[in-house]
Amino acid sequence: MATASDEARAYARANGERFLDELFEALRIPSLSGDPAHAEDIRRMADWLAGSLRAAGAENVAVMETAGHPVVYGEWLGAGPERPTVLVYGHYDVVPAAMEDGWDTDPFEPVVKDGKVFARGVTDDKGQLYVHVKALEAYLRTAGGAPVNVKFLIEGEEEVPSPNLTPFIREHLDLLRCDVCVISDSSMRAVEEPAITHSLRGMTYLEVEVKGPREDLHSGFFGGAVHNPAVALVELLAALFAPDGTVAVPGFYDDVAPLTDEERAMIARTDLTPAELLEATGAPAAWGDERFSIRERVSARPTLDVNGLWGGYAGPGPKTIIPASAGAKLSSRLVADQDPERVYELLEAFIEARAPDTVRVEVRLLTTGRPALVPFDLPEMQAAVRAYERGWGHTPVFTRGGGSIPVVADIVDLMQVPVVMMGYGLDSDGLHAPNEHYAIETFERGIETAIVYLEELASAER
Amino acid sequence: MATASDEARAYARANGERFLDELFEALRIPSLSGDPAHAEDIRRMADWLAGSLRAAGAENVAVMETAGHPVVYGEWLGAGPERPTVLVYGHYDVVPAAMEDGWDTDPFEPVVKDGKVFARGVTDDKGQLYVHVKALEAYLRTAGGAPVNVKFLIEGEEEVPSPNLTPFIREHLDLLRCDVCVISDSSMRAVEEPAITHSLRGMTYLEVEVKGPREDLHSGFFGGAVHNPAVALVELLAALFAPDGTVAVPGFYDDVAPLTDEERAMIARTDLTPAELLEATGAPAAWGDERFSIRERVSARPTLDVNGLWGGYAGPGPKTIIPASAGAKLSSRLVADQDPERVYELLEAFIEARAPDTVRVEVRLLTTGRPALVPFDLPEMQAAVRAYERGWGHTPVFTRGGGSIPVVADIVDLMQVPVVMMGYGLDSDGLHAPNEHYAIETFERGIETAIVYLEELASAER
Repeated sequence: MATASDEARAYARANGERFLDELFEALRIPSLSGDPAHAEDIRRMADWLAGSLRAAGAENVAVMETAGHPVVYGEWLGAGPERPTVLVYGHYDVVPAAMEDGWDTDPFEPVVKDGKVFARGVTDDKGQLYVHVKALEAYLRTAGGAPVNVKFLIEGEEEVPSPNLTPFIREHLDLLRCDVCVISDSSMRAVEEPAITHSLRGMTYLEVEVKGPREDLHSGFFGGAVHNPAVALVELLAALFAPDGTVAVPGFYDDVAPLTDEERAMIARTDLTPAELLEATGAPAAWGDERFSIRERVSARPTLDVNGLWGGYAGPGPKTIIPASAGAKLSSRLVADQDPERVYELLEAFIEARAPDTVRVEVRLLTTGRPALVPFDLPEMQAAVRAYERGWGHTPVFTRGGGSIPVVADIVDLMQVPVVMMGYGLDSDGLHAPNEHYAIETFERGIETAIVYLEELASAER
Repeated sequence: MATASDEARAYARANGERFLDELFEALRIPSLSGDPAHAEDIRRMADWLAGSLRAAGAENVAVMETAGHPVVYGEWLGAGPERPTVLVYGHYDVVPAAMEDGWDTDPFEPVVKDGKVFARGVTDDKGQLYVHVKALEAYLRTAGGAPVNVKFLIEGEEEVPSPNLTPFIREHLDLLRCDVCVISDSSMRAVEEPAITHSLRGMTYLEVEVKGPREDLHSGFFGGAVHNPAVALVELLAALFAPDGTVAVPGFYDDVAPLTDEERAMIARTDLTPAELLEATGAPAAWGDERFSIRERVSARPTLDVNGLWGGYAGPGPKTIIPASAGAKLSSRLVADQDPERVYELLEAFIEARAPDTVRVEVRLLTTGRPALVPFDLPEMQAAVRAYERGWGHTPVFTRGGGSIPVVADIVDLMQVPVVMMGYGLDSDGLHAPNEHYAIETFERGIETAIVYLEELASAER
């Protein structure tokens, strides 16, 4: 006997051409969030999305204002209050694209080539978010209802990056209330190896400035008797690192949740070889904490990087000054259960304790983001595994992302629900690059996986 | 019985007004060496100076071409080959000056106020070099000859700084042959405390660049597995310094000529208090090698300064990159008997030995300059002491300059003669600043000291 998801999947297959045509409409709107010249396109894109949610059968659809670009909201609560509610997060904005960047075709006129759609935003994130709109439609047009309640939270500022989302979520906690959040804005290495991202790193970003004399000094007149701020800076920064490259700040690693053998085995399935790392980066050699694999280092371990250095004269040729000041930007990628504020306090205290009184040292916090780790044995995560197996056709791996997606930690923290990152893109899709593309196959498999996921969620035991 | 110098001094006093009027003519020519728009003024200035040397009685006066601005040469060799020859070095070019920089009066229209002449170049170096022209004139118009032979080497590129002087000297070693070189292009703290600079620091200037990935990397995707070039740089730089602020590079201090008790006692006479240092620099505290006084640190000890740092992102706010490269400019002020090339080799070897193979490290030499130390017990130096005592009216101190005047080391090295730096300016003259000035009293005392110096040189025993 055909289940509701079977019928919905058949509907999706039968309507695949139309779904693609609709997606093309979205791709033709250059909804660049970072460029004020495109404000009207952003608005047009939000309206288009609201229309497509309504057409799919969503209710209470609204283009909701924020201090920046609007959020598009929609819901279908027909499954009833006793059934779980899933919140779909996505974003309709894109990063810039222009022919002169190396595009083979107009980035805002989608073209199909070798089974792939080429257009800015097709994988990041218009194509991936649209999967969920079509999954809801497929249920509503076949069974007349979905197995669970569905809400949509689609923002227009993810690329800038989300300055108004946290306030929006705080303000609309009731409206957004749900049991699980699903985000499709990530990728896998190959169709045969779908990936669920269950962890993201957080961040503590700070600035250190060392000031000395009131202005640049002649190094001949004062060299030897005035502490050089650039020297003091490099000494302070170098002290942060142990000879083996780990962070020398006491307590820095204290709250790092240890990796279990099971997690390490899972991470090993997607490990990078040194050769792959060097090819991807051009670095002369792999580096880092040798007790951990490369994939572990870039995703399951915290880091400390110097993101920028400045001070004195950086032009051509010699200039013999003692610079009046020198500074650095520093950021730490954090993992569960590190607290960004606590890490800042540790770094600040370490630097200030070593600051010599022959210079003035200022440490400033620039930004923080919490790490996110969603246990992969949660029912909502295991439902995702089954959804990939049935809908996509392959068993997924759990992966940890090395970057930070602030909205994930925000939703986990503010809404107290798990976030399931079910990516439907490929690592090779070229997001943010020229000739961004999305395979039609992955779009179609995504829709079927999203359909199955709603069903699996309905039967998932908590 | 009046000696020749007494008569010459009387002549100088009698002609003081005219000497000043002549100097004013020179000051009205804006002979900026760094600005191509003033090339004609430079030429006019050189011609004026040649004319004034001829008028003073110099022979074989010539405006001699270089690859840049011309050198003005002149000589009076009437004392005969058995008498010593003194070479007067000076420069007729000036640094820029404009009313909007804060001048109270036109920088190229000399004005006398409170016994001081205000004009660009009046102390640096037109007024000070003119002293020697007038000293020669005073002898030739009274005794009909000077006690020693005199040559003039006046360049027009000292402020840019002297790119063509070394080749000129090499090319004209015969023409310039002398027994001693005197330079009046320095200053004293007070009229009562004239100073003879008998030492200058040299320099080794280098650049260190650390390269890693082929372009800036996303610190989330690769942080932890790729060595951050900015981190590698600060570690390499920090290793150059010992905890007490001295240079940790083995061998760095090996060739430093130790200070004798006599020298230390002499340096102590012009020592700076920490309060004076802080007032002059705005630094929060004095710093450096506590085994040495502040004046010793800035003049008799070698240094290592970071003159510039760069790499990655230095704009406002956070940017989470691993920079592709980072670099620094480093310079070492050297003292006798350090060899700039040898110091470069030590620094380069030290850095390269510590360069990890996870990054690429490049060390480049930018420029070198030899230190100069003229023993103050040389007869030519002691003659200068007596010249100040008799001509200026006060016993001079010997001082060490912390900066580098490449021409001094060049003359010492290429011509194998001592250089006597007899400054006739005051530290407060404001050279290179708005309202540069020169007290008429110091101009007049300078002429009399220069007159006496020629006589003392003639009788100095080698």
